Amino acid sequence: MTKSEIAAWLLRHDGYLILTHRRPDGDTVGSAVALCLGLRSLGKRAELFPNPQFPEKFLPLIRPLTGKGDPEGKTLLTVDTATRGMLPYNAQHLAERIELAIDHHSSHTPYAAHTFVEGTAAACGEIVGDLLTEMGVRWDRTVADALYVAVSTDTGCFRFGNTTAATLRTAAACLECGADAETWNRELFLTRSAARLRVEAHITQTAEFFLDGKICLCQLPYSVLKACGAREDDLDEISGFPRSIQGVEVGVMLRESLDGAKISLRTYKPWDASAVCGLLGGGGHTAAAGATVKGDLAAGREAILAALRQYGKEVGLWPAES
Amino acid sequence: MTKSEIAAWLLRHDGYLILTHRRPDGDTVGSAVALCLGLRSLGKRAELFPNPQFPEKFLPLIRPLTGKGDPEGKTLLTVDTATRGMLPYNAQHLAERIELAIDHHSSHTPYAAHTFVEGTAAACGEIVGDLLTEMGVRWDRTVADALYVAVSTDTGCFRFGNTTAATLRTAAACLECGADAETWNRELFLTRSAARLRVEAHITQTAEFFLDGKICLCQLPYSVLKACGAREDDLDEISGFPRSIQGVEVGVMLRESLDGAKISLRTYKPWDASAVCGLLGGGGHTAAAGATVKGDLAAGREAILAALRQYGKEVGLWPAES
Repeated sequence: MTKSEIAAWLLRHDGYLILTHRRPDGDTVGSAVALCLGLRSLGKRAELFPNPQFPEKFLPLIRPLTGKGDPEGKTLLTVDTATRGMLPYNAQHLAERIELAIDHHSSHTPYAAHTFVEGTAAACGEIVGDLLTEMGVRWDRTVADALYVAVSTDTGCFRFGNTTAATLRTAAACLECGADAETWNRELFLTRSAARLRVEAHITQTAEFFLDGKICLCQLPYSVLKACGAREDDLDEISGFPRSIQGVEVGVMLRESLDGAKISLRTYKPWDASAVCGLLGGGGHTAAAGATVKGDLAAGREAILAALRQYGKEVGLWPAES
Repeated sequence: MTKSEIAAWLLRHDGYLILTHRRPDGDTVGSAVALCLGLRSLGKRAELFPNPQFPEKFLPLIRPLTGKGDPEGKTLLTVDTATRGMLPYNAQHLAERIELAIDHHSSHTPYAAHTFVEGTAAACGEIVGDLLTEMGVRWDRTVADALYVAVSTDTGCFRFGNTTAATLRTAAACLECGADAETWNRELFLTRSAARLRVEAHITQTAEFFLDGKICLCQLPYSVLKACGAREDDLDEISGFPRSIQGVEVGVMLRESLDGAKISLRTYKPWDASAVCGLLGGGGHTAAAGATVKGDLAAGREAILAALRQYGKEVGLWPAES
């Protein structure tokens, strides 16, 4: 279906129950909130499915729209949810009943009766914004806030490579419709918790460098995270930290897990994170991949360094003699 | 003069020498480069004045356009330069000869024969972009790169409160015209030097908190900066660090200088940084102000804490009994 056909479909149906994905981020939340409000403004019944993991910072947007999640007689939609496995655990049993999935992941694996994927969109919020406009919804201040949260979080406030002119134009439209970008930016992109800063300080002081500073390897033992007072929320995107240091092309973050040492790898071209992690039974994308190896952090360190050396020699990024 | 009149004025003249401001940032550099290229594309002669402080990261944009700076027979312009005192030290003697100043600082103090100030623009690059369009210049890739650098740096990549819909639309147009935003963002907003991270680690581990965590006070002795291997470039915006910690409303940064302890104060409403620093003979804006007090860092610490207490009590932000 085209975007216009999806808009027409949404105008034809009613009684919407909108689902967000597991570990919900700003894009799935913002998309769901904007879509829900837009449909209501057209006189439709619409509510959000109660995702048990909704983050506190988004509750002011979410709370007024969340129902009990009873699916009977409802039209079920998902936003930003690439696979059925990404449904919240309390919605796994609803996978067969999803009528429409709206998504921007080109890796989307269809599970809904109807699927609309636009892989070039940086955020699902871009697609939802277009759909609302297509349906004749005037963005009010809360819709604009929700869409701003969606497009800004998925692009690191327009700093990541997925940002396009269309993303920036959607954000501009949000500001024109009254989005309080200044407050959201402060909360989402300009503030860090004291615990997060303690974790970053630990990483800075214990990071190891290899290959003339091109590789940075960092370890975060469970005990250190406890001592820093860190919660999962404080570790958002921490895997990106090593590669964000000047001169680093390959960032390795090692964390402990019940299954062994968890390796997160972030690379810049010409390195291929996916190929390196593939050597350890893991996988992912060219720029971000992961693997878990048996043993403690020391075992993980040895394994990833060996994999980097092997891959590096194969493709000529590691001197042959070392 | 209106924007159209400025465009017409630029089309009437020729032989441009474009000046940037002292301690040049991305906005003055990007504005100057885009204007220079745009004028050249119209068949005009135009060159950049050799600012001795041009930062290395911008040299690829600047170098092809920089002349010897001989002002004879030239039409002198400034971009993003709010006062004559902000001219580079090797251009101070040219202040009387500036034909046109294009700026976005509402505090602009006129020094040129003609002045065009648009105080609502987040960056001077927004104004230059509009002027180029008005003059019929098609933004090529390098113009787009330069304008992107201008608008992104002055807004912290669209995170600061000065960002408007117009800023985001200018950035969107840059991307459409081929600006390599991904590479600039990585260099300007996603990478930190190892020395910078060592400084941040030190701050994190030595920060003091007052008033239930609302005030954060940090000290950066010269010896610490030396030990971290930091250069001035590594300390860009470091004064903003204390206030960026969750829950902090008042961030104090203390540094040593030959004149005494240099206090940088950053506040969120309802605090008024300018009023607090005024108590110490300094000044600035509501959200960012400074003062220098005689003595060492310990003296600076006592002075700013006393000033915060005095101001806080006056306006009811500090409990009366403490």
